[in-house]
Parts: sequence; C-alpha cells; structure tokens
Amino acid sequence: MDFKKMLANDRVKSYLLKARYGIEKESHRVDLSGNLAKTDHPKSITLKDDHPYIQRDFSETQMELITPVTETVEDLFHSLAAIHDVVYRSMDENEMLWPLSMPPQLPEKEEEIVIAKLENVENVRYRQILSQTYGNRKQMVSGIHFNFEFGEELVQALFRAQSEFKDYQQFKVEMYLKVTRNYLHYRWFVTYFYGASPQSEKNFFEDDSLNEPVRSIRGSKYGYANSDDVQVSYSSIRNYISDLASLVQRGLLSEEKEFYGPIRLRGGHHVSDLKDHGIQYIELRNIDLNPFERYGISDEQVEFLHLFLLYLLWKDEGDHCDEWVKLGDSYNEIVALEHPLARTQFEVDANKMIDEMEKLVETLDLPVYDRLFVHLREMLMDPSKTLAGRLYKESEKSSQSQVATLISKENHKKSWEKPYQLAGFTDMELSTQILMFDAIQQGIQIEILDRQDQFLKLKLKDHVEYVKNGNMTSKDNYVSTLIMENKTVTKKILHQHGFRVPKGEEFQTVEQAIRSYHLFSSKPFVVKPKTTNYGIGISIFKDGAKEEDYLKAITLAFKEDHSVLVEEFMKGTEYRFFVLNDQVLAVLLRIPANVKGDGKQTIEELVINKNRDPLRGRDHRTPLETIQLSELENLMLKGQGYQMDSIPEKDEIVYLRENSNISTGGDSIDVTDLIPDDYKKIAVDAVAALGVKICGIDLIIEDTEVPAAHKNAYGIIEANFNPSMYMHVYPYKGKSRRLTMHIIQYLFPELLQS
Amino acid sequence: MDFKKMLANDRVKSYLLKARYGIEKESHRVDLSGNLAKTDHPKSITLKDDHPYIQRDFSETQMELITPVTETVEDLFHSLAAIHDVVYRSMDENEMLWPLSMPPQLPEKEEEIVIAKLENVENVRYRQILSQTYGNRKQMVSGIHFNFEFGEELVQALFRAQSEFKDYQQFKVEMYLKVTRNYLHYRWFVTYFYGASPQSEKNFFEDDSLNEPVRSIRGSKYGYANSDDVQVSYSSIRNYISDLASLVQRGLLSEEKEFYGPIRLRGGHHVSDLKDHGIQYIELRNIDLNPFERYGISDEQVEFLHLFLLYLLWKDEGDHCDEWVKLGDSYNEIVALEHPLARTQFEVDANKMIDEMEKLVETLDLPVYDRLFVHLREMLMDPSKTLAGRLYKESEKSSQSQVATLISKENHKKSWEKPYQLAGFTDMELSTQILMFDAIQQGIQIEILDRQDQFLKLKLKDHVEYVKNGNMTSKDNYVSTLIMENKTVTKKILHQHGFRVPKGEEFQTVEQAIRSYHLFSSKPFVVKPKTTNYGIGISIFKDGAKEEDYLKAITLAFKEDHSVLVEEFMKGTEYRFFVLNDQVLAVLLRIPANVKGDGKQTIEELVINKNRDPLRGRDHRTPLETIQLSELENLMLKGQGYQMDSIPEKDEIVYLRENSNISTGGDSIDVTDLIPDDYKKIAVDAVAALGVKICGIDLIIEDTEVPAAHKNAYGIIEANFNPSMYMHVYPYKGKSRRLTMHIIQYLFPELLQS
Repeated sequence: MDFKKMLANDRVKSYLLKARYGIEKESHRVDLSGNLAKTDHPKSITLKDDHPYIQRDFSETQMELITPVTETVEDLFHSLAAIHDVVYRSMDENEMLWPLSMPPQLPEKEEEIVIAKLENVENVRYRQILSQTYGNRKQMVSGIHFNFEFGEELVQALFRAQSEFKDYQQFKVEMYLKVTRNYLHYRWFVTYFYGASPQSEKNFFEDDSLNEPVRSIRGSKYGYANSDDVQVSYSSIRNYISDLASLVQRGLLSEEKEFYGPIRLRGGHHVSDLKDHGIQYIELRNIDLNPFERYGISDEQVEFLHLFLLYLLWKDEGDHCDEWVKLGDSYNEIVALEHPLARTQFEVDANKMIDEMEKLVETLDLPVYDRLFVHLREMLMDPSKTLAGRLYKESEKSSQSQVATLISKENHKKSWEKPYQLAGFTDMELSTQILMFDAIQQGIQIEILDRQDQFLKLKLKDHVEYVKNGNMTSKDNYVSTLIMENKTVTKKILHQHGFRVPKGEEFQTVEQAIRSYHLFSSKPFVVKPKTTNYGIGISIFKDGAKEEDYLKAITLAFKEDHSVLVEEFMKGTEYRFFVLNDQVLAVLLRIPANVKGDGKQTIEELVINKNRDPLRGRDHRTPLETIQLSELENLMLKGQGYQMDSIPEKDEIVYLRENSNISTGGDSIDVTDLIPDDYKKIAVDAVAALGVKICGIDLIIEDTEVPAAHKNAYGIIEANFNPSMYMHVYPYKGKSRRLTMHIIQYLFPELLQS
Repeated sequence: MDFKKMLANDRVKSYLLKARYGIEKESHRVDLSGNLAKTDHPKSITLKDDHPYIQRDFSETQMELITPVTETVEDLFHSLAAIHDVVYRSMDENEMLWPLSMPPQLPEKEEEIVIAKLENVENVRYRQILSQTYGNRKQMVSGIHFNFEFGEELVQALFRAQSEFKDYQQFKVEMYLKVTRNYLHYRWFVTYFYGASPQSEKNFFEDDSLNEPVRSIRGSKYGYANSDDVQVSYSSIRNYISDLASLVQRGLLSEEKEFYGPIRLRGGHHVSDLKDHGIQYIELRNIDLNPFERYGISDEQVEFLHLFLLYLLWKDEGDHCDEWVKLGDSYNEIVALEHPLARTQFEVDANKMIDEMEKLVETLDLPVYDRLFVHLREMLMDPSKTLAGRLYKESEKSSQSQVATLISKENHKKSWEKPYQLAGFTDMELSTQILMFDAIQQGIQIEILDRQDQFLKLKLKDHVEYVKNGNMTSKDNYVSTLIMENKTVTKKILHQHGFRVPKGEEFQTVEQAIRSYHLFSSKPFVVKPKTTNYGIGISIFKDGAKEEDYLKAITLAFKEDHSVLVEEFMKGTEYRFFVLNDQVLAVLLRIPANVKGDGKQTIEELVINKNRDPLRGRDHRTPLETIQLSELENLMLKGQGYQMDSIPEKDEIVYLRENSNISTGGDSIDVTDLIPDDYKKIAVDAVAALGVKICGIDLIIEDTEVPAAHKNAYGIIEANFNPSMYMHVYPYKGKSRRLTMHIIQYLFPELLQS
C-alpha cells in the first residue's frame, strides 16, 4: 500500500489529526525529604484494584495515574492534571510524587521494598513472580505509557483510498503493524530527545554495571526489559500472538502482560482479543518521566508523538521486517547509552528525519508545528537541551536526588495552593470541580457531556448517573423543581402543608398592586419581582410605607418581571439549610460583606487585607468572593457616616453591603451544629412537602433558642433546587461539610455497601 | 355588638370584600325537544357518588354541578363554566340541560320518574324515603345553592374590633347567626328580584292547587319545602342543633339533610360538626335557576348576594329572633305568590333597603355598585324586568316550555362550538384546558396554583399530583429533562446507546467552525444554533455548500446562540412520536402550511377558505394555527414561481412554508396506525435511554416500508420534554388520540383499578 499517496488524498486530509489518546503514568510517593514513603496507599482513594484513575503498580509506593481516553490533547492534559490534584490531595500532606523515572534511593535490602497490598490474590502473586524474576529494584523504575489510536474517520478514509484490502479490520491491522515496526526501528529518535533517566540513585544497581551517565537507563538494557530470549515478531498479528503464547508456554514470561516491549498492540484486555478485534490502538511504553513537567510529560511531547506516528505511517519501511525491528533495538541501545551531553552518532539521520517531517506537514496541509521543529533542531544541535542533558547538568550543581526533591516540592506546593480547585477544570463551577474531585477519588468514571453546561456522566461499573451543575440529578422529580422555580407555587404548597411562609399577594399590573396598598401599608413588608434573583428590584419596608414609596417600589419591581409579589417581611436571621434525602447536612449563616476594625487601618486597607485570603476570588470560582469597593459599597458606608478612608475602632464591624449574598463578598459561617433539631426537622419536612430530595431551603429564625413550634418562630423564604455546595465545603468560618461526597454517595449507594 | 361601628372601623375596611364562594346547581338532562331524557347518567363521567364536580341529585336525569370553593367571583364563574362544558360534552350529543327550576313535563305516572342509580345503597334508600314523603314530582324541582363564607381576615378584624366576645369561634357563630336570621327575615327581597319559577309544566301538580302564575313556585309553600311542623330556631347554635335532632327523633325528618330551610348553617359534613367547629359558612338554598344565564346565575346576582349579606350583617335585627324569622317566612310567601308582572306590596320597604345598601357602600368605601343599584330600581319599578316577569312575558308568546327549549338549544350549541376549549379557562394553554376537562370528568379535584404558569394541583382522595404545562410531572426525573434541553448531550447519550443521530460538531466560535468546513463541505448538512427553537437561525444545505455560504450560515446561527451545531442532514420524513411510560401513544406527521388548488380560486382565496376551519386560530389556543400571508409566505411562493393571486391547478398542492411547524400553519396528520412496530420500538427504546417517561421524540424515516434495523433507516432529531398534546387530540386529519386522558391515568393509576 502506498500510504504516501493515500495520506495525501483529499478525502483523507480532513481527518489526518483525528486521534484518541490515553496516558498511564507511574510515580513513587516520597516524603518531603525525597525518601520513599513508608506509608500505605492513601485510604481516601477507594482501594479497588480496578480503580479507573488511580492504582498501584508494582510497589505500595508506586502510584499509577491513568487518564480516560480523550479525543484532544487538551482534554488529555485536563484529565492528567485533575488526577494529579486528586492524588496529591488524597495523600498525607507530607508526601509528594517523585518526578523521575529512576526511583529515589532504595532500601539496602531489596526485600524491604513493599509489594503493593492489593485486594486480589492473583494480582499480588503476579508481583511476587516479577519480584523473583527481575528483582524488586528494576520494578521500581517508573515511566509513561502513551496510548494512541488513529481516529476512526481517518482509518475509514484511508481504507476507502486503497483497494488492496477488502476487509476493514485487516487493513487496520496492517496499518498499525507498519507504524509499530517503524516505531521500533526509529525509536532511538524519541530516546535522544526525551530520554530522561541519566543516572540512578544509591542501591539501584547491586554492582557497578553502569558507572557513566547516559540518556536513558530505563530505555536501555539496564532498564525495565525482558531477558534477551524474549523476542516477538511484528510481521503479522498471527505471528505476534503465537510468539507471545509460545513465550508464556516456554515459561519465559509468566503472563502475556509481562512482555515489556517498547510498544504493545492493543485489541482488548487480552492479547488474544487481537485475533477477534484486530488492533484497536497501540501503547508506547518507552517514555521516561519528564522531570520538568508537573505531570511527567509535556503537550509538545504528545504533539510530537502524534506527528511522529503519522510520519512513521507515511515513511517507507525496510523489506525484512523482523530484522528491521531488531536493527531498531540496537540503534536505540546505542542512543540510550550515549552520554547525555554528547552529540548523538545518529545526528545526520535525525536531521534528515526532521526535514522529512517538516516536508510532510507541508505536503499534507497540517497545521503549523514551527516551535516543535525549532525545539527539536535546538536539542539536536545542543544535547544539553535534551531532557537527559538538562537533568544531568542541573544535577551536577548538587545531585540528581536534590534536584528531584526540589521539583517535587514545587509540584506539591502548587497542588495544595488552591485546595478547592480541580486542576484542568478550573473554568467549571466550583461545586462541579469539587464533585469531580470526589468522584475521581471514589473511582467513579467521569465523562463531561457538556463542559459549558456543567453536564457530567458518572459511571460506576454499569451504574450510570447524569449530573448537571453539581446536584441536579435523577433523584429529583421534574415538577418539584418547577415548583421551586415558582415562588408563588412554592409558598402555596408550603402553606397548605402547615408551614409558615410570608403572607402576600401577587400582582400582574401596577394598578392591581395599588388597590391592595392598604393591606400592607402599616406592616413590615417586601416588594419583589416574582422570578428574578440576586436581590434585583427588591424593596424592603421594615415599618410599613407611604403610598408614594409603595408605588415607587412596585414600579421598580415591575421593571424586572411581569409579576410582582408583595409579602410580609419577616424579622430574624436567615439561614440556609442544605437538605439531602430527608437529612439536614449543613446549615449556613451568610453575613453581608464586612470588615473588622483594628483601630489603625482604614476601611479600604481592611478590605484589601481581607481580600488577600486565597479563598476569595471572582465569578464563583473560589469559595468566597472579594469584597468590592464600588459605588454601592460607598453608599452603604455613607449611610453609616463612613468613607473609604475612615478608620474603624478596634473590633468594630463595618458592613459594606446590605444583602448577605456570598456573591457580593459576604461571609459564610457554618452553624450546622448550633441549630436545634426542631428547626432542622422543619427544614426536612418542608422539603419533603415539596417532594424534593436535594434542596437548599432558607429559613428566617428570630431566635433559635425559642422552640420551632412557637407561633411565628420561623418563616420559610424560599427553596432552591440547585443550591450552592462550595460555600458549605469551604466556609469562611466553621466546619467544612463535604456535601459533594454526600451527593456522590447518594447517587451511588453501592459505594458505602462495599 | 354594634356591627355598624365595627364594619366602619379602619382596620376592618380593608378586608370587607374578602370572601369565599361555592355554587351547587341542579339541572335536568332533556332531549333536543325538551323532553326529560330517558338515558342514564353519562358513562364518561366517573360514576362516583362522591364526584367532586358532577353528581346526580334526586333523579337519574337531575345533574348536580358543584364548583370548588373560590376566593373571587371571577374564579367561581370560571369553574362553573368549565364544569358546564364537561357536563355538556360528556352527555349524548342529543341531550341538553333544562334551564328552569321547574322541571320539564313529567311523566303522567309518578313512578316513571327514575330515581338516581347511585352506587351507595344508603344514598338510594334516602331518595326512596324522599319519594315516599314528598312524591317524586317535588324532588324534580331544581335550583342553586349558594355557599358563602366571610373572609377569615375580615372575621378576625371584626373580632379584634369588639370586646364582648372573648372566644373567636363563638364570635363567629354570633355573626353568622345574625346574618342568617336577617336573611330569613328579608329573603322576600331576593325572591322579588330573582325568583324565576312562575309556572309549572303539565303533570307537576296533581290537582289545580296553583292556577295563577307567581314569582316563585319553588320559593313558596308549593315548592321544595318541608311540612309546616318542621320549625327550627336560629336563636343559638345549641337550639339549632337540638331542634334538628328532635325533628329527626320525632320522625318528622328522615335525616338532618332533609331539612330544606332556605339557609343552612354549615360547620362540616354533619350538623353536629357545628358544635365543635362553629359555623364555617352558610348555604343559601332559595335561589331559582336564572333561565337567561347559561350557567343558571349571573355574576351580578352573586355580587348582589355578597353585598346583601354584608348589609344584613350591618342591619339591626328584631328583638324576638324566632318571631323575626317567622315573620320573614310569611313575607316571603306573599312575595313568592305575587303575580310576576304585579308590583310588590313591599315596594316601599324594598326601596328603603336599596337606599340603605347604597349608603352602606358609601360609608364603608366599598367599590362602585352603580349598575347593580340601577338594575334593582328598574326591576322594582317594572316587575316585567324581574326574572319571573321576563320569563312569564316571554312564555306568553309561545309557552314556557318552548322558551326553555330554545334557551337550552342555544346553550347546547355554544358548548359544542369549540369542543377543544374549556370555558372559563380559554386563556390557558390548549393542552392544559383539555387535561383539565378530562380531570373534571374523572372526578379529580383541580386547583390552579399559577394560571399564567399553567401550574395545576390535581387531587384524588389523598393522592396529590402537580402538573405544569399539561405534562411536566413528578413522573419524570429532573436530569432527564435537562438532558433533553441540551441537544448535544441528548445526541451523545442516544449515540452511546446505539441509536442513529446526526453526526456533527459543536462550535463556540466562528473560527472553530470555519476550520471544520472540510468535514461537511461535500455532504448534506444543517447549521443550527444549539438551544433556540422554532427553526430560527437554521440553514440547510442538502448537497453540501461552498465555503462562503457555510460562513454565512455559521454567522447567522451565532446570532441566535453562543454555541452552534453543524450536523449531518438526514433525508426522509420527520415524524413526532409521543411516548408515555414506554408506549407510543401517537405518531404525527406534520406538513408545512399548504393549500390544495381547485383550478378556480387564487392562492389567497384558498388560504382564506382553509383558515375558516374553527380548528384554526392564533397563539396555540386552537388545535391548528391560521396560515399567514406575510413576507415569508410570499417569498416561498415566489421561489416556486407563484404569487398570491396565482390560481393553482385542480388538486395541486402549493406550500406556503418550508418548515412544518403547526405554529406556522402546518397540518397535523395522525399516522399512529400506519407506522410499523419496529419504528415504535426505536422511539420507546430511545426515550428509555434518556430515562424519560413523557416525551415527544422526532424521528426522520426515509421509508417506513424498510425495516428500522436497516442501516440509516432512521435518525433521531430531537427529544422534547414538554411535547404538545393538543395536536394529537385534534389533528387536521386522522384519528384523535386523547393523550391528556392517558396522562391523567398515568398519574392516577387507581382510576383504572376501581
């Protein structure tokens, strides 16, 4: 088949860059000094051998981070970042991830390396066999496995552009086999640029077998490799399968998965699946951890690998394919064992390949890869710019171990800096980020169905749940949410069930409203638009109102909605009760934006100081919002006889807002443990009356010491069907309530049963 | 107590007109000639003795229409109108309601009057006793019972304005007792104006006891009255109860409810409840059917009765209360038996009372009742303007029976004119009107929680269901509706479940979309905004598109939404499948607005003719919309080489729109029975995959003869969580599918069990 011609076909070109990616990354847990952790795998991460995102590899300290399959490089890194965040913040705060492929200093006695304490006996036994065959030390080497699949549309377009193969699956197998053989032949190219295991730490080698620094210990015979007898043919899928089967039969491999080739053909869970399914994707296994990248690999590397694989599909291969592969092994061994600062002996070939790749990009109308090519040429000219070169040079100043420890610390710090965020998804709503964090920790698969819309698909085995905005789920029925969306209907139903709600009337015209003036004139009351939120168009009259003020308020409210409510104003403190499945899980007090004087600083200075809290930010992407210093705040100060440069007395509280919304800089204070049970029961019963399972219900309580059964002890203001959760998880003061985890356990009760 | 002073109290005034109303109205079923119907009570009306809206009174032909309690006169008439519509359209189309209190001609033999065939044996036995006591003929007299309750706020304000009574319930009892005694004393006033049973038909009286026409046979001793021995004291609640108990004990009444006083004190289901609950409301029973009003009573009458009762509360009563009441009986007898065209001998008193009522309105700052007072004075001056007078005069021209038959026919015609509407609620969405019709028929209590929002509370015994917009219910879960709201998410989920959906991409920017031009350029495709509806911003390219046209379409779509979808265009016909609880209940084909030529008329004339169909109207308040003749239609015609005044050939179909929406004049054609089961299964399974119970799902099918399992046989376009129902109930062509009834039976499965 002439892939050169096929790839340049106009009907193929559109799909050239369609692909699917996945990364598995191993990293050891170490303490803050860079010593291998002595602790167990974190208990907060569900300890399932089949955790989709976080597993243990050979040893108890060796974490394996697994991304889902993604269709863009961007999504791949989002997932990788998020899983890192979960891993970091699930570990002991005094532990970090080792950034190198070569492990930190190992215990003197090999048997002190703790094999992963897995659930499944088979899994433990397999590791014991590995331990006996290769020794524990070699198993401690870590790396990246890069899973790559050409887009289905691309493979189909290529299939249509040829006539040699009639069977689609067979065609696909041939395509991947070509890429695989070429990859094995040319993989020295990857080793040169991205090899990153130049030196080992003490106790890694029992003897002095490797004294000189190299480009990649891991990529060489000194690394993670089968014995020389293990050879497999890539000439056809049949040979590949039978060679592997024969190796297992002959006892050279304990299982097929013990085959450590630099590339694996994947068709399913088992090698034998290849027979039925053909090759679905390939797994590149020879990628060292990139110490300079927080997640062990850069997007440039992924971009490079993708383009490289396309190039290998395009590039002619040698005639004798097994030999062609074998030659590649020897080339790679040479490059892997070159000194990290030495120019490679394949420099001419490398240059030629870069030229060809550049030409390919041009011929196929691919997007511009200029920075990549500049970088490759720089690294080729100057070996100290390769990963191995950089790491080696850095290490010369102190030691490789010290460099690695410093890098770890930096990564550790970043992961804890904004503990409420989930890296990779910081554009999403905070509650959704926290929920996703918990889902990953619990081993629940997440698919983002619509990112802008905060729409998730969660999956645990065969159990699927859809979640929008963190807590809009299948557990609530539709009409109940519509009830909550309509203030009048909510009030009617609560009233019919015997709860106290503000008395009031709904009006459709200003005239109607005026006719009812006398019903409210002498009482405390509120005028508000029926459906809008956030306090817009609301007027409060705490001691009744003159008719002209009433009229003004009505007119204002009608600007926001075509229906206006005039309601009894209830005195007391407003509390937000978060109710889930008939239980109050959190009660929050919200206090308007304020500062506390110290007798020295001006109000402006106090605000600036208070805003320094990393919990404060903008646009609901932090648990609290910064306090503004705009016209509204100025007016509010003026009303109290203050200005921005006034200096409040020590311990004096100055309010900058009338409303208590968190969105305008208010403080959130958890009072769950302070609210008496009878009020909690009111909240639970009221939510049940609305037929709701997940609800934020707002109660006005004049005095929590007074029993809820007393006349007018409380009033229910409103019920919310998508209540904010983050403000309970990260309150300004008081205990954190991990509501997102409750939501997950409510959706997946099987988590608690196992 | 000085009610005159109390009522004028400023704190009372605001609430003076707060009240609650209810009407029970009896009417006989007659055939189109005005003869008593020989058929049974309609089977389509649930045959429960405790039907909340529609029952039978004494005989099988005597329907009793019962409104719910309402807080405005407007709502009262809305309910009354709706119940009438249901009654009319549940009866045989050749039956109507007799508009008079006096029954139509009765059978010669009294025993031929069929006693109501009720479920409950007790209920039947009670009627047999009445039959023995009073004869069947008297029981055939019909009338209106008007239930009236002073607003709770008013009673409370009055209570606070006095100091004589410390107990609220006792105070309330005294208040109602005063009104009751005064009503009994002055009820001749009501009889004069609104008495409306001047003459009887043949066979009503066995002898010639009453030869002369009167104002109200029903209101006199010849009407529906107990024997003279039945006397009850209204001096206190205790006396009232004990008198009634004694009458039953002495066998003068078979049960308390046999007491036919012109006013009844109501405290609950039984008279004895009065002891515990006090008086909750009063029931005025002396109101004759107003023959000139479609619903048997006018809103002016209700307004009058309300004001009259307020006046009676205000007006001093006589000292000896039992005597005061007895005097009233004799005054009423006089007025009832006066000739309908004679001036009343109480004219002076009547005039004085109108003066007093007018003064009261002024003193209490009540709204203007000018028209009522003018009318009362007119009737007082000219007896031929009273109801009895009018009916008598009309009857003189032919006969009372003929007049009544003509009135019946007019009412009958009106009730069938727009059979899809529910009178009283024609401002609501059509599907909601039809659903309410069915609910009333099934004996489900309806409360409108929010009229503008189409929000209903339905209740059957203790079972409550809330419904918004006809089919948004508790049966669907929240997140499933959110899935359907998001086209991308819907498609993803359907695709993951193996259904064919149009392939496509979502874009957030014009640039993104342009980059993907080549993916679509040569195929049929659609460009559309992600969330808007009704075809706005959509461009269809049936054979691919040039890049500049693609760009135009993209730009157009981005004007409507910040996300744009570009999707494969599927060829075929679009069908709407209505799925309820895993069953396809209806399939509809929608055809763009069109006319069929006759070789004579112009397109404009054909449109005007087609629009004459009473099923066509505006704003979704009719099953079909009128075809417009606006710019869009003109453009569409131009594209086909036509103008408005072109004359299409005979049987030629000319389309006036591209889109098939019913809202733009399209035709709806029921094809439920034509669609093969395998396609119905696709619809059911797809809806199940979305986790939905009530759904309108749109399938494109190229050829229904081709099995659904064939490649590309169908495609799913979208799923709707609030699918229109009326278009299936009243299709342009094909069988009607009463989906609203299915919804009710789905919400209340117990309806089918009993």
